[in-house]
Amino acid sequence: MATATEADAMRRAIALAARALGATSPNPVVGCVILSPEGTPLGEGRHRRAGGPHAEVEALAAASAAGHDVRGGTAVVTLEPCNHTGRTGPCAQALIDAGIARVVYAVADPTDTATGGAATLAAAGVTTEGGLLADEAAAGNAAWLTSVRLGRPFVLWKYAATLDGRSAAADGTSRWITSAASRADVHRLRAEADAVVVGSGTLRADDPHLAVRGHDGAVQPLRVVVDTHASVRPGARVLDDAAPTLIATGKDADTGHLPGVDVVRLPRTRTGLDIDALLAELYGRGVRSVLLEGGPALAGSFLAAGAVDRVVGYLAPALLGAGPAALGDAGVGTIAAALRLEVTDVARLGPDLRITAVPTASATAPEEN
Amino acid sequence: MATATEADAMRRAIALAARALGATSPNPVVGCVILSPEGTPLGEGRHRRAGGPHAEVEALAAASAAGHDVRGGTAVVTLEPCNHTGRTGPCAQALIDAGIARVVYAVADPTDTATGGAATLAAAGVTTEGGLLADEAAAGNAAWLTSVRLGRPFVLWKYAATLDGRSAAADGTSRWITSAASRADVHRLRAEADAVVVGSGTLRADDPHLAVRGHDGAVQPLRVVVDTHASVRPGARVLDDAAPTLIATGKDADTGHLPGVDVVRLPRTRTGLDIDALLAELYGRGVRSVLLEGGPALAGSFLAAGAVDRVVGYLAPALLGAGPAALGDAGVGTIAAALRLEVTDVARLGPDLRITAVPTASATAPEEN
Ligand SMILES: NC(=O)c1ccc[n+]([C@@H]2O[C@H](COP(=O)([O-])OP(=O)(O)OC[C@H]3O[C@@H](n4cnc5c(N)ncnc54)[C@H](OP(=O)(O)O)[C@@H]3O)[C@@H](O)[C@H]2O)c1
Ligand SMILES: NC(=O)c1ccc[n+]([C@@H]2O[C@H](COP(=O)([O-])OP(=O)(O)OC[C@H]3O[C@@H](n4cnc5c(N)ncnc54)[C@H](OP(=O)(O)O)[C@@H]3O)[C@@H](O)[C@H]2O)c1
Repeated sequence: MATATEADAMRRAIALAARALGATSPNPVVGCVILSPEGTPLGEGRHRRAGGPHAEVEALAAASAAGHDVRGGTAVVTLEPCNHTGRTGPCAQALIDAGIARVVYAVADPTDTATGGAATLAAAGVTTEGGLLADEAAAGNAAWLTSVRLGRPFVLWKYAATLDGRSAAADGTSRWITSAASRADVHRLRAEADAVVVGSGTLRADDPHLAVRGHDGAVQPLRVVVDTHASVRPGARVLDDAAPTLIATGKDADTGHLPGVDVVRLPRTRTGLDIDALLAELYGRGVRSVLLEGGPALAGSFLAAGAVDRVVGYLAPALLGAGPAALGDAGVGTIAAALRLEVTDVARLGPDLRITAVPTASATAPEEN
Repeated sequence: MATATEADAMRRAIALAARALGATSPNPVVGCVILSPEGTPLGEGRHRRAGGPHAEVEALAAASAAGHDVRGGTAVVTLEPCNHTGRTGPCAQALIDAGIARVVYAVADPTDTATGGAATLAAAGVTTEGGLLADEAAAGNAAWLTSVRLGRPFVLWKYAATLDGRSAAADGTSRWITSAASRADVHRLRAEADAVVVGSGTLRADDPHLAVRGHDGAVQPLRVVVDTHASVRPGARVLDDAAPTLIATGKDADTGHLPGVDVVRLPRTRTGLDIDALLAELYGRGVRSVLLEGGPALAGSFLAAGAVDRVVGYLAPALLGAGPAALGDAGVGTIAAALRLEVTDVARLGPDLRITAVPTASATAPEEN
């Protein structure tokens, strides 16, 4: 049984891990706290970026730098210590070498390459215990765990709308439907994502920049425009050097006006570029979490493809009664086929509401009344 | 200064008043608790229906029936005791006659006819104190207080929609977007309202019944159909005898197929029947609170007329991407003219969210960012 001290340390480790969201792909976020045999924290660390030291190694180094002896101590870590030698050595071995006597982790490593760390530790005589605060730790790593399970990036669709579901007024104006607090929150979502995706319609309408502002040190996400005919103009804000950019086009698009721009050519379906192919391309580039920023048409295609894992709606307390809807055709023709979600969080952001929801596993119709 | 015992009694009085919502118009809801000089509750009462005893009189009678001597006691009442002789005698005088020594009330009576009760009491040597839990008591009487202030019924617009603001799927199906818990809550709103209003479009599409179910003893609201051309068919469910019904039509509508049906003829505006005239007619019939159940077109007209005092949206965690919007044209063409609200409550009802909002006094655009 894990102790209360270990649970406290796990909470701290989960918080440490969260700080690195958006910076570690294709790796997970991981946090670690080293405790003395008496339960005193000796050092802590997190995995900060792919290729950088793993959380356990950073925590051991921190303890050592502070002059602590970690032998006989406990490592509390959000993910099962890895067992493989990638760009860095296996963490399981590093913990064994340091003389750690006990390892408490939250979530088992589901990957073929890294799994087995707990077994290696046990074989070396280290006590191991998995599952402590597993749900909280898994929530903190939801994007990465989902991407491992599905073999494609985790996709969060965010939209902003009025209470009556409009994303702009009848004349197309939309600045600003939501409050400054909501817009700042979107920058947090961008900072936590590996890629930000928009459709060519949004690009043409808004000339968005899509880079992260207000988060010092955040790794800028890859900006992705889904643009069948390469309609993006040189000089578009999304093409500046604030962050990398990828233009996804059809096989036959003329991209002669975009020298030096990173372009990927994708197959087309009835509604536009193939969403699965887009996500496979991004996955191949190490993208594990995508923030889908719309617009309505592209969001509809993602939903129709079953490629949305979380929805975050910023609802402004306003009514328009006319104007474009926040969501376009998602292939739903009748109420029984509605995409059913489950609300997981409701928060107030300034005057607005932020509603977070996830698709329900099986869409069950509510009972008659 | 009111005592803690008096504050407790006021909370009880507010709760008593709330039970009569929907039954007392054109009168307010009022609750009263009589305390002994030592603060012991001796009797309580509420105003149950127009023409019935006022709360103070019912509370005095209850104390007397229980054999209590109320002389020297305190009356705690949600609204300033009335000063006029309507269908019942003035409450101020009844309290004086009973030998009550002190009256604590929450909200001053704003009406010309009933005001002055506190002055009458004071002139008779009764200590009076107003303002105790005034906000809570006013919230409980919001509909009546609003109707007094505006000279028209209070209007609550309720709608049900998906997260993307659709009230039905592309093929028109909508049973059931929201959950049984939300639908039950709508019956509570109906029970608390004096009239339930729908447009002829909703009547044709849904043949709704609009009576209250599941609230024993609730006074059935007046069912009102806004139906310019008297398109309602004999046999429509809204014409049954479960509750009274009023059909509002244009001056020239042919109502020959509706013998015995209560019809009112109203002037027309560009968008349909004149909303102000409708509300004036309802006010004249004693209606102080209206539940506007839609549909989208009629709700748009009410909003454009500035005739919505509260919005209750039942949001189902579902996405449709197509289908009719929850709100139609409300005369808003550009984002700066959006009808701005303030969210006053967010609740979970089963899987759904219930969002309550009120129009902001002055629509201020959020700052740039
Ligand atoms: N409120 C919000 O949260 C929000 C967010 C974003 C945008 N918006 C608003 O949305 C409006 C633009 O929306 P929109 O629906 O016209 O544009 P969009 O969804 O941004 O882009 C749609 C376009 O993307 C291209 N596309 C390529 N593959 C696609 C696929 N598989 N599925 C769908 N589209 C694909 C198509 O154009 P091509 O074939 O030409 O490439 C399509 O017309 C703007 O007014 C913007 O302000 C609102
Ligand atoms: N989700 C919800 O909360 C909800 C609630 C109610 C209804 N609905 C749905 O809404 C749909 C019907 O909506 P709707 O917009 O067509 O009908 P509606 O708003 O119920 O009724 C509109 C009709 O009312 C009449 N009218 C008279 N005076 C008016 C005025 N001043 N302003 C507006 N209309 C006036 C007009 O027809 P005439 O000139 O012929 O009289 C007008 O076409 C149905 O499918 C129903 O299921 C949804």
